[in-house]
Amino acid sequence: MALLDGIGGPRDLDGLTPRQLDELASEIRRFLVAQVSRTGGHLGPNLGVVELSIALHRVFDSPRDAIVFDTGHQSYVHKLLTGRQDFSGLRQRGGLAGYPQRAESEHDIVESSHASSSLSWADGISRAFTMTGQDDRTVVAIVGDGALTGGMTWEALNNISDDNTRRLVIIVNDNGRSYAPTIGGMARFLNDVRVRKTYRSLHRSSEQVFSRFGAPGRAIYRGVRGGAHGFLSRFANNEALYSNLDIKYLGPVDGHDVTALEEVLAQARDFGGPVIVHTITEKGRGYEPARRDVADQFHAVGKIDPESGEPLDTGTGLSWTDVFGESLVRLAASNERLVGITAAMLRPTGLHRMAERFPDRVLDVGIAEQHAVTSAAGLAFGGMHPVVAVYATFMNRAFDQTLLDVALHRAGVTFVLDRAGVTGPDGPSHHGVWDLALLQSVPGIRIAAPRDGARLTEELGEAVAIDDGPTVLRFPKGEAGQDIPAVERIEDGVDVLARSGGRDVLIVAVGPFARLALDVARLLEAHGIGVTVVDPRWVVPVPSAIVELSAAHRLVITLEDGIRVGGIGTRVRQDLRAAGIDTPVDELGLPDRFLPHSSRSEILDEVGLSARAIARGVVSQVLGTRIPIARPLAESADDGGESLDGVGASSQDEKRS
Amino acid sequence: MALLDGIGGPRDLDGLTPRQLDELASEIRRFLVAQVSRTGGHLGPNLGVVELSIALHRVFDSPRDAIVFDTGHQSYVHKLLTGRQDFSGLRQRGGLAGYPQRAESEHDIVESSHASSSLSWADGISRAFTMTGQDDRTVVAIVGDGALTGGMTWEALNNISDDNTRRLVIIVNDNGRSYAPTIGGMARFLNDVRVRKTYRSLHRSSEQVFSRFGAPGRAIYRGVRGGAHGFLSRFANNEALYSNLDIKYLGPVDGHDVTALEEVLAQARDFGGPVIVHTITEKGRGYEPARRDVADQFHAVGKIDPESGEPLDTGTGLSWTDVFGESLVRLAASNERLVGITAAMLRPTGLHRMAERFPDRVLDVGIAEQHAVTSAAGLAFGGMHPVVAVYATFMNRAFDQTLLDVALHRAGVTFVLDRAGVTGPDGPSHHGVWDLALLQSVPGIRIAAPRDGARLTEELGEAVAIDDGPTVLRFPKGEAGQDIPAVERIEDGVDVLARSGGRDVLIVAVGPFARLALDVARLLEAHGIGVTVVDPRWVVPVPSAIVELSAAHRLVITLEDGIRVGGIGTRVRQDLRAAGIDTPVDELGLPDRFLPHSSRSEILDEVGLSARAIARGVVSQVLGTRIPIARPLAESADDGGESLDGVGASSQDEKRS
Repeated sequence: MALLDGIGGPRDLDGLTPRQLDELASEIRRFLVAQVSRTGGHLGPNLGVVELSIALHRVFDSPRDAIVFDTGHQSYVHKLLTGRQDFSGLRQRGGLAGYPQRAESEHDIVESSHASSSLSWADGISRAFTMTGQDDRTVVAIVGDGALTGGMTWEALNNISDDNTRRLVIIVNDNGRSYAPTIGGMARFLNDVRVRKTYRSLHRSSEQVFSRFGAPGRAIYRGVRGGAHGFLSRFANNEALYSNLDIKYLGPVDGHDVTALEEVLAQARDFGGPVIVHTITEKGRGYEPARRDVADQFHAVGKIDPESGEPLDTGTGLSWTDVFGESLVRLAASNERLVGITAAMLRPTGLHRMAERFPDRVLDVGIAEQHAVTSAAGLAFGGMHPVVAVYATFMNRAFDQTLLDVALHRAGVTFVLDRAGVTGPDGPSHHGVWDLALLQSVPGIRIAAPRDGARLTEELGEAVAIDDGPTVLRFPKGEAGQDIPAVERIEDGVDVLARSGGRDVLIVAVGPFARLALDVARLLEAHGIGVTVVDPRWVVPVPSAIVELSAAHRLVITLEDGIRVGGIGTRVRQDLRAAGIDTPVDELGLPDRFLPHSSRSEILDEVGLSARAIARGVVSQVLGTRIPIARPLAESADDGGESLDGVGASSQDEKRS
Repeated sequence: MALLDGIGGPRDLDGLTPRQLDELASEIRRFLVAQVSRTGGHLGPNLGVVELSIALHRVFDSPRDAIVFDTGHQSYVHKLLTGRQDFSGLRQRGGLAGYPQRAESEHDIVESSHASSSLSWADGISRAFTMTGQDDRTVVAIVGDGALTGGMTWEALNNISDDNTRRLVIIVNDNGRSYAPTIGGMARFLNDVRVRKTYRSLHRSSEQVFSRFGAPGRAIYRGVRGGAHGFLSRFANNEALYSNLDIKYLGPVDGHDVTALEEVLAQARDFGGPVIVHTITEKGRGYEPARRDVADQFHAVGKIDPESGEPLDTGTGLSWTDVFGESLVRLAASNERLVGITAAMLRPTGLHRMAERFPDRVLDVGIAEQHAVTSAAGLAFGGMHPVVAVYATFMNRAFDQTLLDVALHRAGVTFVLDRAGVTGPDGPSHHGVWDLALLQSVPGIRIAAPRDGARLTEELGEAVAIDDGPTVLRFPKGEAGQDIPAVERIEDGVDVLARSGGRDVLIVAVGPFARLALDVARLLEAHGIGVTVVDPRWVVPVPSAIVELSAAHRLVITLEDGIRVGGIGTRVRQDLRAAGIDTPVDELGLPDRFLPHSSRSEILDEVGLSARAIARGVVSQVLGTRIPIARPLAESADDGGESLDGVGASSQDEKRS
């Protein structure tokens, strides 16, 4: 890595010759394959932007010029070129983040890894630069063609085009893919461009076309004609990406030709107004295993063998995603009304299984969660039952549509939220910890949190049978693990998972935290504290059996893999109070702050969601004076003694009006 | 109203002659002016779509063909033509809704009045029609040019263009306005069309252009040539709205010429694939006072004099909006970093005052809340302090952006949420009741709820001085009323508004519910119950003074004009429990259901948020056994007697570690 070792910052690129730049690109690719195969990470996207990142940092002057990555998983090369070459702890606690991170470098600006926001960021930054007299600073947004399917980009472009005086360069990194191939009319258009244009010369090279843009246009025209690598073309209006928006457009340019890229980027930089630069890149470029992977071209990998690309640490069991995908196929086989919807995540959500069997009943809408949700409401109106499968974190994008298009219209739509809860290495914007708090505020919604694979299958079947409002299933990333049997299923479909001799503590476990709850129960029982562990299965609305059980215990612990502020625990407590039950409730969940990238278990430990930490808290309350004092209810005081000792009393016995 | 009286449903339009249709349109306009001037309502938009609604119901066969209105405030004429001619109770309890409502008619499908969703609905419905073998049914979406600035429409069009076999007609009702004139590059494009094309004949009438679309194109061409009213033109690609999306386009057509509209709509209906029909209409058409109103052409009015258009029931005091607008101008005069952002609501949010004084520092981004929020984060990065002024209900559209673009980046952005809480006549999708629950789950956010105009001014000043994260101000619709003085300002800026002889009940009033809290306090005091009323001013995070005061009372009542599920009350209670304080908390707020259109006071009465109902609930608890039993805390029991009698003890005295 002779050249790479010498790059301590962007300006170290300045002196390199074209030949050296090509060699640097090769070194970077070798580096990426060697490093990411050890740690896992977003390999394919970064292999695709090596030359683009080099050209970017040669033409623009970061951090004076502001570089904004959309989604940000393609920022590895940018990190390498801005002084961050220790990839040994990539995406691990204390190591480099897998996305831009301001704490790491002044060259990083936007950390969020939700797609389609970069143009809005760039619009805002460039306006601020103008307003504050910094209008010699250029703002550069790098956005994938997949992200262009998101509506935010349209909103941004509509605004950017409204003011043509700002230095704003939009680089469309067009690899024809989001995670999987990009969908929709826009993608078809881009594809036409690639097929017809990429390696040909100018389509309409007449000076006249460029002249429409005055002096800069003529300059571009001359530059094109004279350029050694010149196949850039300014599209005629009838083929432009957003012709009606009247934003200048350069391209397409070969995204693996540093010299050509530098030329077009320099022209864009010097244009003096918003410019779109259309670059064609290849995801997984230069790495044969990635190129062979037609599904996602090594979009994100775990640890792999660098030579073969074969995964090294494959799990043995089925993932939650697998269980969902297979269960849905079985349901779809017997229910023609089921239709699957994904927002550019066919395979990661497991919906590809249904797509293989029933291709006409699976829709990929692009990175467009808002449209996914509202079109689902339309599908329900028309007689179908849509199953919208997205990552939990991305539901944040479609709250309004869930509320007003689905719930207000009582549309029978099932939302399947994968990667719910703490996810781990992808950092703050990928943890799916808001969905419960957010969705429980939707009137009429029903939320299930399966604790294991068997329950996922069961609850999915229950959800798709409900046609008078939204239903939600949420489950985490990773393997589903062994099923957790119930001791008894009581009323409202609530499963009792453990029941010991005394009725001191009721643990209400949301979803896979059932396992954690059972661990807590074992520790408490060792201290002589009687524990009942229940899985409500459907957590919203709170089953009345939970309310009744709570009345018969001295303390209620709710355990959820989501933020505790406004979470399911608060709802349990509200329902208790409304029923006249003042058993104290401790709502355990994630704290009210952004969580870093780390492993799931590290994070849960840190925030006190380990069995030992939880048990310690309970023991101190129960052995102290607090619980006995707070417990006696006006009504329940009568049967308090009995309830404390009563074992196995069915919840019916405890019912009250 | 000879003709209108005879219209009991759409098919009654079939036999009418062109002359009769024109007469019917005149009758409808007279009806609308006469009726809406009595009740208030969306007058301007409906005057603009009289002929369009008539043509729609003559050409399409509702409800077999599905008609979806975007936003829906322009559905009055549709209501008149589908058997609903009693407008006497428009937007009032029990009367006609101001938007489509399924309970009223099988002709109404989409009730939500948030913009830009109709194309997604139409996409879903038409796909379902295809999947269920109902593919002879056409879906029609009527969308304003303003709504096209919303990103959802882009997401939908990208999907609609992906499948060209469905019967889907998109009518762009282009009046050049959202609430106010539409902004952005797209609007400029549409404006060019209007200026250059509307009243001229075909731009490119060559058969060749139409022939590109095969037989239907040739048919359209011939229809155009032969049509008596023919000035419809199929745009050349380089001028089409969404040329790259490859959706067929008809127009522009005069939206006030029923015969011309019918021709183009029939062609669109028979095309057999998605079609955009571009109609040019005039908001407020045929009503001179509306035409003279350049600001918003009588978009929505209260009761007015039908002759002059002058408002009849003007309030005397300043509205919350006025106070905000004026306060912001004062702040902006001394702080050059302030920049105002509105999503197509310049005047309704009061931001026009700043725009008049500082036109370069106010941005209207279109109906694009997502972009408004993320571009604000960008503006903050670039050195400005944005003030994003939107209606509370529309913040639901931008939760993810607030969370990840603003809060994760600790961007100093102030959100000003007008029309927060129960708003009244606009119905379920306009009540601003989700913002508190939603936004309190954003880490690091600070939320203020001013109780009166003086506090709005004060808290706005405090908010814009905070540059390390999002700040929120939320206040209701209507007049700010008299200021409510504080008895004392204690630590953390908490205002004590009333304090009686005993310390039985602490009422924590969020924002203008301070007035309600004081009414409750008076009733309770009459029953011998001692009450303290506090306004936390900043409700998130919960000031520690609130926690301390709670410990010194027997019952805490939180009062918020938002949903109680996941609301501020739950946070107060969590903070109490975390501090070891088990004073029971009753979280009063709005129930977990959609609220109808009615007056604000009617709704608050219905849901039990009247002073009498609240006081009754407290009295029954305090006089019963519940409060004394639940109250004694391990720690607070010691000073219980003293606290109950202690009057005027400052919160410092109650502080505990």
